[in-house]
Amino acid sequence: MQVNGKHFRTIWLEDDGWSVGIIDQTQLPHVFEVARLETLEDAAQAISTMQVRGAPLIGVTAAYGLCLALRQDPSDENLERAGEILVDTRPTAVNLRWAVESLRRAIDGMVGQERVEAAYSKASHIAEDDVATCRRLARHGAELIFEVADGKRGEAVNILTHCNAGWLATVDWGTALAPIYRAHEVGIPVHVWVDETRPRNQGAALTVWELAAHGVPCTLVADNAGGHLMQHRKVDLCIVGTDRTTVRGDVANKIGTYLKALAARDTGVPFYVAAPYSSIDWKLEDGLLEIPIEQRSGEELTQVRGMDNEGTMRTVSIAPPGTTAANFAFDVTPARLVTAIITDRGICPASREGLASLFPGRF
Amino acid sequence: MQVNGKHFRTIWLEDDGWSVGIIDQTQLPHVFEVARLETLEDAAQAISTMQVRGAPLIGVTAAYGLCLALRQDPSDENLERAGEILVDTRPTAVNLRWAVESLRRAIDGMVGQERVEAAYSKASHIAEDDVATCRRLARHGAELIFEVADGKRGEAVNILTHCNAGWLATVDWGTALAPIYRAHEVGIPVHVWVDETRPRNQGAALTVWELAAHGVPCTLVADNAGGHLMQHRKVDLCIVGTDRTTVRGDVANKIGTYLKALAARDTGVPFYVAAPYSSIDWKLEDGLLEIPIEQRSGEELTQVRGMDNEGTMRTVSIAPPGTTAANFAFDVTPARLVTAIITDRGICPASREGLASLFPGRF
Repeated sequence: MQVNGKHFRTIWLEDDGWSVGIIDQTQLPHVFEVARLETLEDAAQAISTMQVRGAPLIGVTAAYGLCLALRQDPSDENLERAGEILVDTRPTAVNLRWAVESLRRAIDGMVGQERVEAAYSKASHIAEDDVATCRRLARHGAELIFEVADGKRGEAVNILTHCNAGWLATVDWGTALAPIYRAHEVGIPVHVWVDETRPRNQGAALTVWELAAHGVPCTLVADNAGGHLMQHRKVDLCIVGTDRTTVRGDVANKIGTYLKALAARDTGVPFYVAAPYSSIDWKLEDGLLEIPIEQRSGEELTQVRGMDNEGTMRTVSIAPPGTTAANFAFDVTPARLVTAIITDRGICPASREGLASLFPGRF
Repeated sequence: MQVNGKHFRTIWLEDDGWSVGIIDQTQLPHVFEVARLETLEDAAQAISTMQVRGAPLIGVTAAYGLCLALRQDPSDENLERAGEILVDTRPTAVNLRWAVESLRRAIDGMVGQERVEAAYSKASHIAEDDVATCRRLARHGAELIFEVADGKRGEAVNILTHCNAGWLATVDWGTALAPIYRAHEVGIPVHVWVDETRPRNQGAALTVWELAAHGVPCTLVADNAGGHLMQHRKVDLCIVGTDRTTVRGDVANKIGTYLKALAARDTGVPFYVAAPYSSIDWKLEDGLLEIPIEQRSGEELTQVRGMDNEGTMRTVSIAPPGTTAANFAFDVTPARLVTAIITDRGICPASREGLASLFPGRF
């Protein structure tokens, strides 16, 4: 997508043909900075310090990390070691392990320069595949926005989203935001209500930043505000991402998603979930019972990091010393509250039958 | 209530018999400081800078502000002028105007020292009446906690609350937190889930502080977390306050209350609203249509104030420069989502019939 008029992806091969460029997301939204990865260690650190984040983007970064390792030493031993280092950076990220294994399979049995070249080719393929998946999802999802726009006579379509499921979480386009970028691209006026997304503030730090940088009108609101907005008909539809989708259409997404789905149901606002193929867990049925919910440090709640008026990044405490805080990272929205799922293969009801109609081979 | 073992109210007459002590709430939760009001101007400033906040407490502060003014000059002209200055500090606060007018009526026709003494007596009466109202509400509401405790065999009763409707918002006891203090007082184990309450963070700054200072176990959570907690049976009941209650039982309370009420309904958790007599607006019927919702500065969302690790209070920005933010301060929870209303006269269904049963004279 665009950053103030110039096209960027979150990760790219530099002109030298081997080093890797990334947007350093730890500096957002205050500073837009790119970084250059030249070694396996650079790649591992970029993932562990969250310079890159979002499951698809982490996977692509790991694939390029293997390339950088093989460039220095294309042996099996080094490949093994590099894979372990990368997988250890974010032990729960499914895409990370998948990307590492997928690349290893692609270069199995090769040696020397041939192996290095095949690795770069596979990493590039994984990145392009992610872009193509998100672009397909964008086209399908945009149809839902077009339908609403038809009834609005040129007024902006108001879309509420939660957390960041934008291009910053993928290589380009994003998932929940992809249909919005597509609608914007073809000239449909859109306006996005962006949930702040406490406690890590991804809405304020990433979603507002990427929408504004691309030129999509948006307004930041507290996570508390979505219900009021929907009660007063200020939201035409909700679109959120998903970290894990079960075969019956339950979705685990950033904590607070369930509350917005309830408000959407109570006020008659459609609630859509953008779920690329890779987010569907074909082994799970009941999201509430079966999806484990990560608990993170309470400090993410009691400490806030931001920029002071002299341009210095600072951390301040907003709760009394010694406060006990609980920090559940995700919640589960049951399928009954999801109007439809937007996938890279089309749109379907949030149900076993719905998903089976798009992915018949998996049922 | 207690602050680390010593009993405090939010406002009190000092031992000299004329000056007024308050807790300076702008310093919470980082520093516990008391301030002394000696003039009308001190009182007006305490209200406008939010050293005191919460509708009942503002009213009592204004009453004492009139006393301080009359002590210097008990003339009708000065009384008139002082009343105007105080009412202008927070133009929308209903209790403020009510307290000023109530005190003026009580001293009508009096002059000199007699007038000053009558004013102090009325201010003290308003304060004591607030304490008595909250204490009655505490006793009624505690019955609901006792009922749950009966089934828990000594395990703590888990109560979720939103914003601050504690003793810091009143003279003592509070409204939503009053039944919790009462249960704690009689030895029922309780644990409170405290919503952070963005964007002003009253949960983190005030509710966690006052509960912890009194010795009531509590855990801070993001506003996003309540639905997940209720889905997983970690909440036995919700109790929130109300800024305005309509005759059919709709309630306007801090933004986000509606979302928690929806989650409570969806998961079968009882959702109670603590509504002292003074919060009921007998002229209003439909909360969604009739209660105007205050919109505050978007900076409350984009800027966060807290203490850095060197003990200095600082403001940091958490959104990109130029971010548009919308900041609705309240939302309306329709009566159908409220299990019951806890008043100072007892507990009743959130309906015209329910309120009529407790306040027959008003219908």
